[in-house]
Amino acid sequence: MSLEVQDSEVDIVIAALQPNLTSFFQAWQPFFSRFDIIVVKDPELAADLQIPSGFNVKVYTKSDIDGLLGATSINFSGHSCRYFGYLVSRKKYVISIDDNCLPAKDPAGMTVDAVTQHMVNLKTPATPFFFNTLYDPYRKGADFVRGYPFSLREGVECMLSCGLWLHNADYDPMTHVVKRNQRNTNYVDAVMTVPLGAMFPVSGINVAFNREVLGPVMFPGLRIRKEGKHRWDTLEDIWNGLCAKVICDSLGYGVKTGLPYVMRSDAEAGKALESLKEWEGVKVMDDVLPFFESLKLSRTAVTVDDCIKELAGIVRQKLAPKNAIFSKAADAMEEWTKLWKSHGAQNA
Amino acid sequence: MSLEVQDSEVDIVIAALQPNLTSFFQAWQPFFSRFDIIVVKDPELAADLQIPSGFNVKVYTKSDIDGLLGATSINFSGHSCRYFGYLVSRKKYVISIDDNCLPAKDPAGMTVDAVTQHMVNLKTPATPFFFNTLYDPYRKGADFVRGYPFSLREGVECMLSCGLWLHNADYDPMTHVVKRNQRNTNYVDAVMTVPLGAMFPVSGINVAFNREVLGPVMFPGLRIRKEGKHRWDTLEDIWNGLCAKVICDSLGYGVKTGLPYVMRSDAEAGKALESLKEWEGVKVMDDVLPFFESLKLSRTAVTVDDCIKELAGIVRQKLAPKNAIFSKAADAMEEWTKLWKSHGAQNA
Repeated sequence: MSLEVQDSEVDIVIAALQPNLTSFFQAWQPFFSRFDIIVVKDPELAADLQIPSGFNVKVYTKSDIDGLLGATSINFSGHSCRYFGYLVSRKKYVISIDDNCLPAKDPAGMTVDAVTQHMVNLKTPATPFFFNTLYDPYRKGADFVRGYPFSLREGVECMLSCGLWLHNADYDPMTHVVKRNQRNTNYVDAVMTVPLGAMFPVSGINVAFNREVLGPVMFPGLRIRKEGKHRWDTLEDIWNGLCAKVICDSLGYGVKTGLPYVMRSDAEAGKALESLKEWEGVKVMDDVLPFFESLKLSRTAVTVDDCIKELAGIVRQKLAPKNAIFSKAADAMEEWTKLWKSHGAQNA
Repeated sequence: MSLEVQDSEVDIVIAALQPNLTSFFQAWQPFFSRFDIIVVKDPELAADLQIPSGFNVKVYTKSDIDGLLGATSINFSGHSCRYFGYLVSRKKYVISIDDNCLPAKDPAGMTVDAVTQHMVNLKTPATPFFFNTLYDPYRKGADFVRGYPFSLREGVECMLSCGLWLHNADYDPMTHVVKRNQRNTNYVDAVMTVPLGAMFPVSGINVAFNREVLGPVMFPGLRIRKEGKHRWDTLEDIWNGLCAKVICDSLGYGVKTGLPYVMRSDAEAGKALESLKEWEGVKVMDDVLPFFESLKLSRTAVTVDDCIKELAGIVRQKLAPKNAIFSKAADAMEEWTKLWKSHGAQNA
């Protein structure tokens, strides 16, 4: 896992949903301190942020969002505020970790450097065309197994790295309510490419991507009605991930899941019950997943920008008649392509 | 991982490629002794088998194969002899482990019960329609993550369980020669369903399956020219696995990979070099994988038997013109459906 990571190629983007980020920054200090950090404050959060000194931090607030973008149909409140950070970053890569997550420990007791692991995931090839049963073939001590075609062993570029979570796993509110005392303790020491054509639920809790390439599809599109501030309220990252996966599949890029883990703080089961009463997310995915699984983007869409424009049109045509939230998602997708062109597309 | 496994529902099938199975059986005694064991002796192996007492073993030899089947176009020599055991078994499930494998230890130092883990894999549902980022959602302490559609949480029946290998990994002869000192030490504590449409290289080293359902597709079809007695010489299991995967995908069944591990004894690097000189396997997979990835079986093929007959026809039409080994594979596939009907299809 040795790899040169330049400070100048990575921004760390943190969505501040709580004012006091002191213990968060202190815990991440060994891994974050040499990088530029973009903190985007939830536009609905009133209290002043507390961020310890010793970091290269730039904080963006509601007035920055309003000032830069003016009137926009995209709602940047709650967890969605981080996407504003993706827009104003000028780095090749972005890493984003929720503000209720701390560094995890591996089974040997070593603290996990999530930054380096994400960068290893992004900078080593992905293998979407055939599953390797020993997982990441480029990892030290591993290789391609017997039967793996030699013509596929160079792999393709990896654009998205989705890390995982120990302790409080990323469940929906129903599962949180039912299994309120269950904690994830299983550290699975593997990174794998999600195969071509296979869809998976991307969590925005602990994620990294190639901003230069994937930026036009890293938007907050799907917002369910009466969405709150908890992860379990949201599907914006799941939707985002499905869009990113179909586009990576269409353009021949790879997407990985597995390491690194972060340690998530405790869920509040009572509050999950509150969310559940009106949670639209229970049924939405039953429409969303078949839509993405049967989707085929045209061969003439050869950039991420081409693909997302085509995808927004298909969402409007096929999904929007079922539920107004999909119509709003299509609006947000089209709006994002414009915002990205004006504000996001400049690179360092 | 607690689960009731009936002695009467499982056969363990061992291909004897070496005469002295004493240490193999002794090592597996805690896990094998209560089950019926079918040992099939490589028809080209001359020396008498040594098997310790205390096991319910039935040994099949060349004369049993010839006596039951008469003239057949299927070549049961080498690793392929185990498939005769699949044919004569009358149990619902079969587990097969290579005779150079011993029980592995997990990271906590506990000896792995590969039999029970395979049966857990087969008896708990598989989830081929969406990837669960926390891997097996039915495992103790795990669940479906946020975004996983509730309509898919019942899963489907798992028909094939492919275990892995510590120490001497299952590489092709080229990789064995290049990395002669590399040993796999990474115990990845996970079981996962291979997603719908994703192909993967099934290794026959450590495998279990539902014989009643999948039997008609568990055949030795592909035999490369000048194939020897080493695993690295063979692609019969890889071909078999690709056939099984497309058929499971077509019929809505699941296939899993991951746990259990077994410990494989050392490779003999010098011999890998000998195999390599004439190893046809280097290029064969570059034709085989695209064939399987683009394959679509018809909706009217609703049983494994229907599917394998259709598949054999497509192999003959599309692949056989490229290489005579595919024509022989199609012969073997058609022959196997007949053998299975006459000899394999009876259940206990």
